[in-house]
Formats: sequence, C-alpha cells, structure tokens
Amino acid sequence: MLVNYKQLQQIINGSSIPIPISGTLSGHAAGEPFDKHVYSAIKAQLPQNTFRQYEYLNDLYSKNAEIIGVKARQELFDSPSILFLLSRGKDATKNWSSESPFEEKQDDTADIIVVKDGFYEIIDIKTRNLAKSAQAPNIISSYKLAQLCAIMIENKEFNKLSINYFEVDWLLENDLLVCKDTHFINLFKTDPKELYINWEAAMQIQFHVCNLSQNFNEPIEHWAISYLKHFVAQVYRRADYMIEKYAKPFEKYL
Amino acid sequence: MLVNYKQLQQIINGSSIPIPISGTLSGHAAGEPFDKHVYSAIKAQLPQNTFRQYEYLNDLYSKNAEIIGVKARQELFDSPSILFLLSRGKDATKNWSSESPFEEKQDDTADIIVVKDGFYEIIDIKTRNLAKSAQAPNIISSYKLAQLCAIMIENKEFNKLSINYFEVDWLLENDLLVCKDTHFINLFKTDPKELYINWEAAMQIQFHVCNLSQNFNEPIEHWAISYLKHFVAQVYRRADYMIEKYAKPFEKYL
Repeated sequence: MLVNYKQLQQIINGSSIPIPISGTLSGHAAGEPFDKHVYSAIKAQLPQNTFRQYEYLNDLYSKNAEIIGVKARQELFDSPSILFLLSRGKDATKNWSSESPFEEKQDDTADIIVVKDGFYEIIDIKTRNLAKSAQAPNIISSYKLAQLCAIMIENKEFNKLSINYFEVDWLLENDLLVCKDTHFINLFKTDPKELYINWEAAMQIQFHVCNLSQNFNEPIEHWAISYLKHFVAQVYRRADYMIEKYAKPFEKYL
Repeated sequence: MLVNYKQLQQIINGSSIPIPISGTLSGHAAGEPFDKHVYSAIKAQLPQNTFRQYEYLNDLYSKNAEIIGVKARQELFDSPSILFLLSRGKDATKNWSSESPFEEKQDDTADIIVVKDGFYEIIDIKTRNLAKSAQAPNIISSYKLAQLCAIMIENKEFNKLSINYFEVDWLLENDLLVCKDTHFINLFKTDPKELYINWEAAMQIQFHVCNLSQNFNEPIEHWAISYLKHFVAQVYRRADYMIEKYAKPFEKYL
C-alpha cells in the first residue's frame, strides 16, 4: 500500500464540505466534492505520485512528446494490465497532443492513481448519503475485470497494481455535507465469490464498500483465477436463469 | 385512435418552449416541458378523456371512495391488461386515500392516457435533441411487454388498449427549445421483429420513434403472439451469446 489509509481516514472522518450549489443530494452531484477532498488529502501524503487518471495520461504523453501514433504511445505503458485499465481508446490516443490534452471522463476506470516504483495503486471513491437507503453503487464492469484477470494471467503480471475502494458516508447538516464514517477495501483481499454482478445494469459489480470482507489472503494469481471461476459460473447461471424466467413461461403461447 | 395525431403534429411542429432553468439539455430535464406541452394539446382535443397516469388512478379511486383494500380497488379496473399496465404496487394501492393521492412517478408506464368508451390509448412522449446523436431511448421493459401479451392472450382481450409513442425533435435556438419535427407510431403496427432489446439496460426495448415501420396490419392477437415469439427467441439468443462472449474465452484459465 502506497497510501496510508489509516491517516487518510483520520483526516476525512468528521470533515465537511459546503453543499453543492446545483443538483440533487444523491449520486454524482453530491459525491464529487468529497472525491476531490479525498484526492487532495492523498496528494498531500504523496504529492509526486498522485494523479487523476487523465492527469497521469497527460503527464505520460507530455514527457514523451516525441512519441506519436497509437502503437508507440501504447508501448509507453510498461505493463499490459495498466495499458488495459488506464489507456483511452485508439482515436483519442492518436489525437492526443499537448495543445488538446485529455480531460476528465466520467467512465474512466479510476478516480485516483498513485504510482511509485512501477506500482499502480488504483483508487475509486464511493460516496454514500446515510439518510437514504440506496442500491449498492456500480463498482466496475464484471467483464472488464475478467479481461484484466486474463491479461494478468497471460503476462504473469501479479505485482503491478492494486484496485481499492474508499467509501465516504455523509449526512447533510446545516448546509454542510459532513463525513460520518469512511471505509476502505483492497479488492484483491475480498473473496471473489462475494462479488455480486448486476447483469441488467451493464454487468456491473455492485457493493457497498462497508459490506465486503477482507479475508482473502492468497496470492493475487489465485485471486485472478478464483474471480474468473466465479465470473464464468455466474455467466452460466445467468443464462439458465434467463431461460427459466423469461423464455419458458411464454412458450405455451407460441 | 382517439387522438387526432395529424392535428397534434400541426400544433407541436414549430412550437417552442423556454429553456429549462436548471439541468442539462439532454435527457429528462429538457424533455419534460415538451411532454407537458403535448399533454396540454391532447387535453385541448379531448378534455374529458385525457389524464396523466397518476391522475387517472386518483380519479378512479376518488369516484369509488367507498371501495377500500387492494383487491377491491384492483377490481375497479374492468380489464386485466389495464390493471397490469396502469395500477401501482400493492402497498401504494392499499395506502391510497383522497388525502394522500398518488403523485407522478418517473417509472410510470404512460405519460398520458386517453380513455373513452372503455378503450385506453396509452401515449409516451419521447423527446430528442437533434444537435446530439444520442443512443435510442428506453421505451418499455421487454419483459413487461411479454407479460402484457400473455395477459391479453389469456383473457382474449385484444381491443382494450393501444400503446403509442410520440417523438418531439427539438433544437436550442436563442434560449428557446424549438420543435423541428414530430413522429408518431402505434406499437401494434410495428413488426415485433424490429424491436431491439438492450439486455444490459434493464432489458429495455430501445428505438427512435422516427425509425420504426408501421406496416404490421394483422390482428392484435397475431401481434401478441409474434412479439412473444420474438422475445423468447431473443432470450435464447442472448443466453447463447453470453456464454460465447463472456464464459468460453475465460475457461482456459480455470
């Protein structure tokens, strides 16, 4: 772990931010300021190593301004896993220039990346309004995660990255959003069997960070294989379920 | 058809509404004022027969204030198909009272209902910003539509309702949203085979109203059976696709 999460929690717990001017108090609008707040606190810990995803890409391509073209830029990543997780699409990569750098995209994989000595700590911030009982949020595409596991196995690359989630639980108090609690997990410490896939919501894995265990202590290689077993089993289960629930009951009318 | 859609189009085409004060120009925020605008124009044609879905339910339960309880209130609907499409959930139905009537819900089936002589013309308004090339919008759950078809077949009830979509194409011009064109379809006039199901978006049927044909001239009973054939075939196809795309490629790593 590059970030000291205990120290981060001490800073964020009890902190508050002004209520956003526009938007509702659920979802993106309320969450964004806390995301920026956590980012600042991590950057204070590791100023040279902390990036937004688009900042990291702009930094990488700027430092290698003589490298142009999709293929050459892709080779700047020293890791197939990191290339897969962090790089933008081919057109965007080709068209990048220091005059028109990348901007933040809502569907970027990571909110925050901390990079040190070739290791990438990927951090996503999840915010939660404790006054509402909301559905667990979208975490990451279960298919994207399966592809990542396959790339890690193919390249025997198990020590390049970690994927982490930091949850900020807040309440509205006198025009302030006040952080009441925080939770942190390393995805590779959670038994993959616990990961719920919502097939109807773009195959997203969904969970509240505070609900996941952190007892998976086997090597990352085992995690990747275990996740793929879980994912493939869930695909077959979903296919069977669809036929049972959505096809069979209607066949008598055909 | 209860509504004169030709006349409606003459009124809406070229009309404009002030730009909404809050929100972005995509999606719900921009669409809502046009929805209300179309509603007013239909209500001007058929003042006694035109309702918002929640208004219709409030009207039905108010006129029968002595009828209480879920079962008795459900029996007020003279049609299983209409009950299925328009009624609210059991708890909401039980708890309804004239002091706490229903309010508009974003996931109500219909934007507008026109009722006359026991026939229900269900109308959904779809708005489209011509300046953006957007994904086709969610129309209705493919599963809900399959359940409706089964209910219609079970009850031999093919002359009770129609499901209609009215598209308003608009552009932003000098702080006004200006309607540039409108399109109308009756779902039961579209060959069910044309209906695209997005399995990852809550199994929603998605289309732009302007892209659908209106050449299906067989009886509604045939439409219902034809839709169920299409839906069931798509379920099997999706189940196969999921296994081919999401399971098979990863099995070599297990």
